[in-house]
Amino acid sequence: MTPTAVELLITGMDELHTMDPTRGEGPTGLLRGAAIGFTGGRVSYLGPAATAPEAQRRVDAPGTIGLPGLIDCHTHSLYAGDRAGEFRRRLNGEPYTAILESGGGILSTVRATREASDEALAETLHARLQGMLRRGVTTVEVKTGYALDEVHELRCLRLLKEGRWPQRVVPTYLGAHAVPAEFRQDREAYLRLMIDRVLPQAAELAEAVDVYCDRGAFTLDEARRVLEAGMSRGLVGRVHAEQVEFTGAASLAASLGCASADHLERIDEAGVTAMAMAGTIGGMLPTAMLYMRDVSPPARRMVDAGVRLAVGTDYNPGSSPCPDLWTAATLACLLMGLTVEEALLGVTRHAGLALGRPELGWLTPGGPGDLCLMTPPPGAPARAETLVQHMGGHRAAIVVREGRVVLEVVRGG
Amino acid sequence: MTPTAVELLITGMDELHTMDPTRGEGPTGLLRGAAIGFTGGRVSYLGPAATAPEAQRRVDAPGTIGLPGLIDCHTHSLYAGDRAGEFRRRLNGEPYTAILESGGGILSTVRATREASDEALAETLHARLQGMLRRGVTTVEVKTGYALDEVHELRCLRLLKEGRWPQRVVPTYLGAHAVPAEFRQDREAYLRLMIDRVLPQAAELAEAVDVYCDRGAFTLDEARRVLEAGMSRGLVGRVHAEQVEFTGAASLAASLGCASADHLERIDEAGVTAMAMAGTIGGMLPTAMLYMRDVSPPARRMVDAGVRLAVGTDYNPGSSPCPDLWTAATLACLLMGLTVEEALLGVTRHAGLALGRPELGWLTPGGPGDLCLMTPPPGAPARAETLVQHMGGHRAAIVVREGRVVLEVVRGG
Repeated sequence: MTPTAVELLITGMDELHTMDPTRGEGPTGLLRGAAIGFTGGRVSYLGPAATAPEAQRRVDAPGTIGLPGLIDCHTHSLYAGDRAGEFRRRLNGEPYTAILESGGGILSTVRATREASDEALAETLHARLQGMLRRGVTTVEVKTGYALDEVHELRCLRLLKEGRWPQRVVPTYLGAHAVPAEFRQDREAYLRLMIDRVLPQAAELAEAVDVYCDRGAFTLDEARRVLEAGMSRGLVGRVHAEQVEFTGAASLAASLGCASADHLERIDEAGVTAMAMAGTIGGMLPTAMLYMRDVSPPARRMVDAGVRLAVGTDYNPGSSPCPDLWTAATLACLLMGLTVEEALLGVTRHAGLALGRPELGWLTPGGPGDLCLMTPPPGAPARAETLVQHMGGHRAAIVVREGRVVLEVVRGG
Repeated sequence: MTPTAVELLITGMDELHTMDPTRGEGPTGLLRGAAIGFTGGRVSYLGPAATAPEAQRRVDAPGTIGLPGLIDCHTHSLYAGDRAGEFRRRLNGEPYTAILESGGGILSTVRATREASDEALAETLHARLQGMLRRGVTTVEVKTGYALDEVHELRCLRLLKEGRWPQRVVPTYLGAHAVPAEFRQDREAYLRLMIDRVLPQAAELAEAVDVYCDRGAFTLDEARRVLEAGMSRGLVGRVHAEQVEFTGAASLAASLGCASADHLERIDEAGVTAMAMAGTIGGMLPTAMLYMRDVSPPARRMVDAGVRLAVGTDYNPGSSPCPDLWTAATLACLLMGLTVEEALLGVTRHAGLALGRPELGWLTPGGPGDLCLMTPPPGAPARAETLVQHMGGHRAAIVVREGRVVLEVVRGG
């Protein structure tokens, strides 16, 4: 075989959504009859199949829908333990306070995570990530925040950064997830621990710093201190904002230049305007909204004001035990009123922006070689809208990560 | 090998929910350390693994959760065409009336279904059923109602009855799904067609007769006529009741001795009482409620009054494009307030009752040999509550249908 520039060429897809409106049709930059080539881990050809170059390997994929590898931009998927028992008890009518008093809630996850071995944590995370890869997700943001002390938060970050995972993992330091039990009498001491001791080390391991600014977690002023400390060390800033009550955290995120503010059920008009002006991405987490039986954030108002929306799973053992980004995309439409195109951008290009990784989540020559090929539900045409309309467990047919096929499902398998 | 009475024996499951409270713990009749044996398509052993008999084949399944093969008791999964475009258009703000005027809605599915070949209909249905089998579903009710004329309704019933499907298919005649376009000026002629011509033949092919009694569909009196005609020919009676507006259909279902009344968002107190007295099962369809952005039926009030609830997907191309019964079970908890145990009974034993098939959906010696073994989400213990808590695409590890392993997933595959 003669060596060629293109290592892998994929043809035959019914649709290829580049997520680049300057390249194809509509907001998702749709191409038909297209081929995409990869070389050295990057996209090296993107254009008509008819004029595609020779390639070392060629995959013909009729009946599939091509999308950039999906990005789950908000997960808490590194944890030990399980809280299905709480779910059962709450449905049986037991008040959440009783569950907390009996040792449940987030602090039970903290105990279990601290006690788990590196091997156990890594094995479980790997299985969760593999499940996400099967759904076409090639980038997963994973937050810490279930360790909440110096040793274990850093251990988690090291694991995330140094582990061998099925896809790209973007580690976020979320020491400011909750005040740990041992610091309940002295919040200031925990803040100083984070800012003075953990963050300087975390900045070498994480890509972002995140704060849960809300009632029962951290105040606006505390959030500002943690974010400023992290961002001054080069971390991308992100915030859990306006979920339980309005705090002004969305405006804070915008004023500090954070990449995203997520949840936003109780954002005010000033926050919407500030996010739009600053280019802060709004992170929509519809499964959390559903499990918490909460109201919707004003998604349409945000879009109208110019805020770009990402969609994530918020995968965690308590308030969002849903690892399926496709389900989140559908629910973002049903519960929050996103359009199909907004949902698709929310799990791709806008999710990349929410991570402060603008090169991810879209397809362009020279850009990252991450692609997923999805098959539509049985009987439906190979159009992306069928994936958003149908809910409940889509699986990818082929996943390409950094130019290499990392998952290929045999039809009917 | 010496011949033995037990052909297949399954051991090692962490939990085995028999759905028989007289046999095991709690409402789901939970056994631990149990084994289940199958002979001649039926359960031939159910008891402690320690005293289990020899078997021709023995499968050890540690880390799994055993349940009776799941039953999806309400689907419209035999159809051609696709309506994802409508979903996109509605999210873009287009009114449903405009979509109907441009040829969309249920009548577009009717056109496509009439035009589809037997082979195309069967192939698509087979793929949908195979997807359901992968989720552990061993019995699927499938309604007609997208043909709405004599030739094609009977063609669909014949296909359902005579096809070779991955699991048990229970065909329901739902000629009374909508008044077809060609009978809009003469509803009575369509009723006479159903009652005088189609039903006598349908009674040989279907197990049940169903009517969509609601605004825009059939009146209470029309529903009664169709149900009486079908039930007098030995069909199980079922009703789509009180979804769009209150009609009294739930009370009608109870008074006629129907096996189920489904939807029930707008049921009144008299309907609840009548259903409880008659033993009519309440069919909860939470994905339809979600896609229609509707209110919840009074599920807790029904349970308190003594109504047993089934949970189905209502899988159809318009108002419930969700084929995943596990997602429906989770949503029944989140949106309707069912307990975990009620959701599990809803997709097993109560679903069998909704079909008028009381032998299905539970495990007992001599009963049908249908079993699914589920693996919990990564990191979670093998308890059924973890499957209901987590949402988004569970897959079965092993499925047994009529005593034979019909699906076995290699771990990590």
